[in-house]
Amino acid sequence: MPTSDGNLMRSSRKVGVEVGGREIVIAAEKIVYLDNNATTRLDPAVLEEMWPFLAGYYGNPAAGYGFGRQVREAIEQARERVAALLGCLASEIVFTSGGTESDNLALSSALGLDAARRHLVTTAVEHSAIRRQPEHLAENGGGVSAVGVNGDGELDLDELENAIRPETALVSVMWANNETGVLFPVEKIAALAREKRVLFHTDAVQAVGKVPVRLGELPVNYASISAHKFHGPKGVGALYVSRRSAFRASSFGGGQENKRRAGTENVASIVGFGKAAEIAARTLEDEGRRVRALRDRFEEKLLAAVPDCFVNGAGAPRLPNTSSLSFPGLEAEGALALLDRHDLCASAGSACHTGSLQASHVLRAMHLSEERLRGSLRFSLSRLTTEAEVDRALELIPRVIAKVRALAAG
Amino acid sequence: MPTSDGNLMRSSRKVGVEVGGREIVIAAEKIVYLDNNATTRLDPAVLEEMWPFLAGYYGNPAAGYGFGRQVREAIEQARERVAALLGCLASEIVFTSGGTESDNLALSSALGLDAARRHLVTTAVEHSAIRRQPEHLAENGGGVSAVGVNGDGELDLDELENAIRPETALVSVMWANNETGVLFPVEKIAALAREKRVLFHTDAVQAVGKVPVRLGELPVNYASISAHKFHGPKGVGALYVSRRSAFRASSFGGGQENKRRAGTENVASIVGFGKAAEIAARTLEDEGRRVRALRDRFEEKLLAAVPDCFVNGAGAPRLPNTSSLSFPGLEAEGALALLDRHDLCASAGSACHTGSLQASHVLRAMHLSEERLRGSLRFSLSRLTTEAEVDRALELIPRVIAKVRALAAG
Repeated sequence: MPTSDGNLMRSSRKVGVEVGGREIVIAAEKIVYLDNNATTRLDPAVLEEMWPFLAGYYGNPAAGYGFGRQVREAIEQARERVAALLGCLASEIVFTSGGTESDNLALSSALGLDAARRHLVTTAVEHSAIRRQPEHLAENGGGVSAVGVNGDGELDLDELENAIRPETALVSVMWANNETGVLFPVEKIAALAREKRVLFHTDAVQAVGKVPVRLGELPVNYASISAHKFHGPKGVGALYVSRRSAFRASSFGGGQENKRRAGTENVASIVGFGKAAEIAARTLEDEGRRVRALRDRFEEKLLAAVPDCFVNGAGAPRLPNTSSLSFPGLEAEGALALLDRHDLCASAGSACHTGSLQASHVLRAMHLSEERLRGSLRFSLSRLTTEAEVDRALELIPRVIAKVRALAAG
Repeated sequence: MPTSDGNLMRSSRKVGVEVGGREIVIAAEKIVYLDNNATTRLDPAVLEEMWPFLAGYYGNPAAGYGFGRQVREAIEQARERVAALLGCLASEIVFTSGGTESDNLALSSALGLDAARRHLVTTAVEHSAIRRQPEHLAENGGGVSAVGVNGDGELDLDELENAIRPETALVSVMWANNETGVLFPVEKIAALAREKRVLFHTDAVQAVGKVPVRLGELPVNYASISAHKFHGPKGVGALYVSRRSAFRASSFGGGQENKRRAGTENVASIVGFGKAAEIAARTLEDEGRRVRALRDRFEEKLLAAVPDCFVNGAGAPRLPNTSSLSFPGLEAEGALALLDRHDLCASAGSACHTGSLQASHVLRAMHLSEERLRGSLRFSLSRLTTEAEVDRALELIPRVIAKVRALAAG
């Protein structure tokens, strides 16, 4: 269990952060954290912005008095900041408890708007929040067409077009894949859906904060966003609902979020989300370039140092921060455990599969061999990843892989 | 807008709190905050407990490495603490984003379990998260029976019993009313529902942390809880699902919360919720007594000082912290605005009706006269309410009421 002063138990070096005008020791730097697609560190500047709403401004934003109004203003400022990052209007942002809720709201809205349209077109490589809807849909008389990908993780757009039927309620395609980082041509797919007069949703959770996502300029109806994927707090996200789109709420209550999502607002986290968006908008270009260079160097050096190593999705456009690698002959689980013992955090599949290390549905959809499937690791960087972390990873990973491979061969 | 050091702009006195081993100035005490049924101040000890998970332990609880496992353990400790407060098992607690989500999950589960049962029995005085379901239910071929209350806000149990039909999916009755504090005989109603073989849900949001709520000892199937109503953080709550009860999830994703509620866990807030529960369990008895004495003195003195003043629900058992008062001839809105100018926070109806001051559906259900409806104010205390605050309120309120009444009469 963590100690209450916020230090990592196994830490050596410490860093401070200014909060409430005082320096507070918050975390250790010993860990090499390369699992930023699972979650990211809360940016100290984000925590600083949340602080007043944790420590002092606890008023209910729905209240009529000044102590509530101040809080309401802070929420609206956060909404403006998120909208600025996404190139859309503040009124198009519905705050939610995170990406999964946003995905669920989008699907439930699309499926609830027209009883004659119960069919969903999506891909074989979506996040589980979209992928696990089939059961639910089958019961409602609908069905799901999951469009496949090629060996590089790229969608077949003809297959996608042919999958759209008169009873299709929604096309839902992620902006960037969480495991490989492969980017889908959202602009083209959105235009296709628009042409066929079908609603289009994109799970943009892994893209926002890493690459430009300008929703206002695209024929996108709904988009899901999560704060904790780009150094904002956990437990808060948004659903973008374009001003031209119908929306059907699926929860009821106090009329918050323009009657689109009920419940007392998660004030401090919404404020933090806004700050994370403001920082992302400001740093996206430079940090995108820096992170891409760091990730490219990481891959080049690993490919040179480790025999029989493949970059998954190498032939496709990818996020700048993600590196999905296959090492045939490796047991991913053993490698991760050994890396963990050296304080390196990475993952094998999506972190949302609690505990279990089953073979990734994403890599399976790419028709990777069983050997490559079993020996796949994901390393994901962020704008807080340092060169020193990558150097340490480059020193560790080849040794660990050689050792685990030798054990398996032994 | 608040300043970033967490002080209230109009504050004079300041108080400190230990966080991360340092003293931080967090809030002012000038405000007289008597709107604790809307939301409460985050207990500094709760914030202290959340701190490591905001500042350092950002790992994803679903991750396999130690940096994720530590976080998972903290979530499970919080679950134990919430369960201890509610007298139930940790496995019966499903963390959600708050009371409204919990209410919605309970209803959606009950209505989804059996297609032949679409009817809901509830009361005329429920929170909007339950009350606003009728539309939704009507579309699904169900209906709602809302049982009325008498002049003291008490339920007619015969009417409730008669409302239960073979197609009733759920009886949902709140534990304590948010506006009047009137307590319903949940034990009796739960037993009645059990006898009729109908699921029973209680919105216990206003009761938990104020009066003993021992769910494990009652035939309750589902119960909704919210952390920010008893000095925990906003944006987190729980649905209690008894181990004997069927449950149907309504959101899909990464399998968190034993597949009952998907989405990356709101770690810091869950930890804070756990701490708030631990404190509530420990202080409930003594603080309940202290708050009741404070509230009773408040009411006695006001009744003596203000002519033509009524306590709503006076004849019924009530929460120890809530005082709903009617002042015929008063315009509640004007009185609240004037109280606000003197830094006193109170409310007219439920705070969840964003901005609008329409006559309370709760008081209307109690058949109060239009005069009493329009002139109703709610004052709600908490274990952080001081005697000095109540003294200040007793000094202010009679003056404000006389002034606003005179203006209306003038």
